[in-house]
Amino acid sequence: MNASPSCPGRIYGLGLGPGDPDLMSLRAHRLLTGARNVAYFRKAGRRGQARKIVEGLIPEGAREIPLEYPVTTEIPVTDPRYNACLAAFYAEASARLEGISRHGEDVVVLCEGDPFFYGSFMHLHARLRKRVPVEVVPAITGMSGAWTATGIPVTWGDDVLTVLMGTLSEEDLVRRMSDTDALVVMKIGRNFDKVRRALRAAGLFDRAWLIEYAQMPGQTVMPLAQAGARVAPYFSIIVVHGQGRRP
Amino acid sequence: MNASPSCPGRIYGLGLGPGDPDLMSLRAHRLLTGARNVAYFRKAGRRGQARKIVEGLIPEGAREIPLEYPVTTEIPVTDPRYNACLAAFYAEASARLEGISRHGEDVVVLCEGDPFFYGSFMHLHARLRKRVPVEVVPAITGMSGAWTATGIPVTWGDDVLTVLMGTLSEEDLVRRMSDTDALVVMKIGRNFDKVRRALRAAGLFDRAWLIEYAQMPGQTVMPLAQAGARVAPYFSIIVVHGQGRRP
Repeated sequence: MNASPSCPGRIYGLGLGPGDPDLMSLRAHRLLTGARNVAYFRKAGRRGQARKIVEGLIPEGAREIPLEYPVTTEIPVTDPRYNACLAAFYAEASARLEGISRHGEDVVVLCEGDPFFYGSFMHLHARLRKRVPVEVVPAITGMSGAWTATGIPVTWGDDVLTVLMGTLSEEDLVRRMSDTDALVVMKIGRNFDKVRRALRAAGLFDRAWLIEYAQMPGQTVMPLAQAGARVAPYFSIIVVHGQGRRP
Repeated sequence: MNASPSCPGRIYGLGLGPGDPDLMSLRAHRLLTGARNVAYFRKAGRRGQARKIVEGLIPEGAREIPLEYPVTTEIPVTDPRYNACLAAFYAEASARLEGISRHGEDVVVLCEGDPFFYGSFMHLHARLRKRVPVEVVPAITGMSGAWTATGIPVTWGDDVLTVLMGTLSEEDLVRRMSDTDALVVMKIGRNFDKVRRALRAAGLFDRAWLIEYAQMPGQTVMPLAQAGARVAPYFSIIVVHGQGRRP
């Protein structure tokens, strides 16, 4: 292990799915339970959601590599310091994983949901993909976990599905919500009131469902109209089901 | 087995994912390999895509229940006969599965992709869910298999994702394509030329990728501009990746 072998190890962006380890793919499970190096993002001082999902599945003796965000919501994303701070973090994390790869070892990077769908791993992927072998294992998205939890199909026939982040402006939310058949809203958290107002303005409020912790312990599913003054956690997703053609 | 027991069996909408059996969830795999009754849709005279995915995984002695579409593309979906014909088919298929359930046996219904995302199982679910226990196992969507195959993340930061069916009017396609960050187009097949014209009109043609048979044997991935006069098969998906915020 002192000399770097000529063949670098592979870095896997390992999609874990929405939260229930039973919804992990066979491939993800096999790679995880055979891993020697397991990296995951987390907020400093926290356990980390991805790490929680795989509790009991990391092999004994595997090295754990927590990648701790220097900042999450303390600085607004519009502040240039936010980007600078995160760019330095991703560069450092990428260098660390590249170092392990250059020693000939594989690393799995745990990803909540699907790695290429609004995931943090994408920022490592962008930095590493031309330097060492990187492979992405797709997974069930959080939104799929959420609409499945409602017990109602999300899209029928020719339905248009729009996926919106709660971080958009209220005006943009209203305009886009008013022009779709089926709707998913993510990144709710502190945007909850704005998202609710937009749903009302778009006439979708009474058809909207709120799913908290989809496919995780503590999952709750309710029509949004019944959510009252509830504070939606970060992992909340809002779904409005399409009403398209059905024989 | 002559008298119906008081406890009906459960009908599972079993999401198989995009095509590679290795991308099936642990839960789907366990339910499938323990199944006594395995139902799946197919076109008469064909093997059926869902059935192909699980080749070698159905336990010996399990009963196979092919549900054969009476019509697929022979009648336009706008013709009232199309709806009538399919409604009768789904009613009959539901009655058949309900009969097995009432004998106290579980049935798994194989679903390509995610069952609640533009899936045929939804039509059985709508008919069965108030009559017998029905459970849906979510899965990796075909579109997730497709964007993963391109090796490029599909959505970043606050990107808006729009999912469109190629069956929409050209005018509607152009308008919606012109107003999104990331785009997925499904149901291409005989709509391929129209979809291409719409992508050109929306200025997205040069950023679009064509994925055929994502995560299946015979997968091809190419920039749409290189597809030439190719005829896209039914399982094609077009992806335009978002360009959102990235530190």
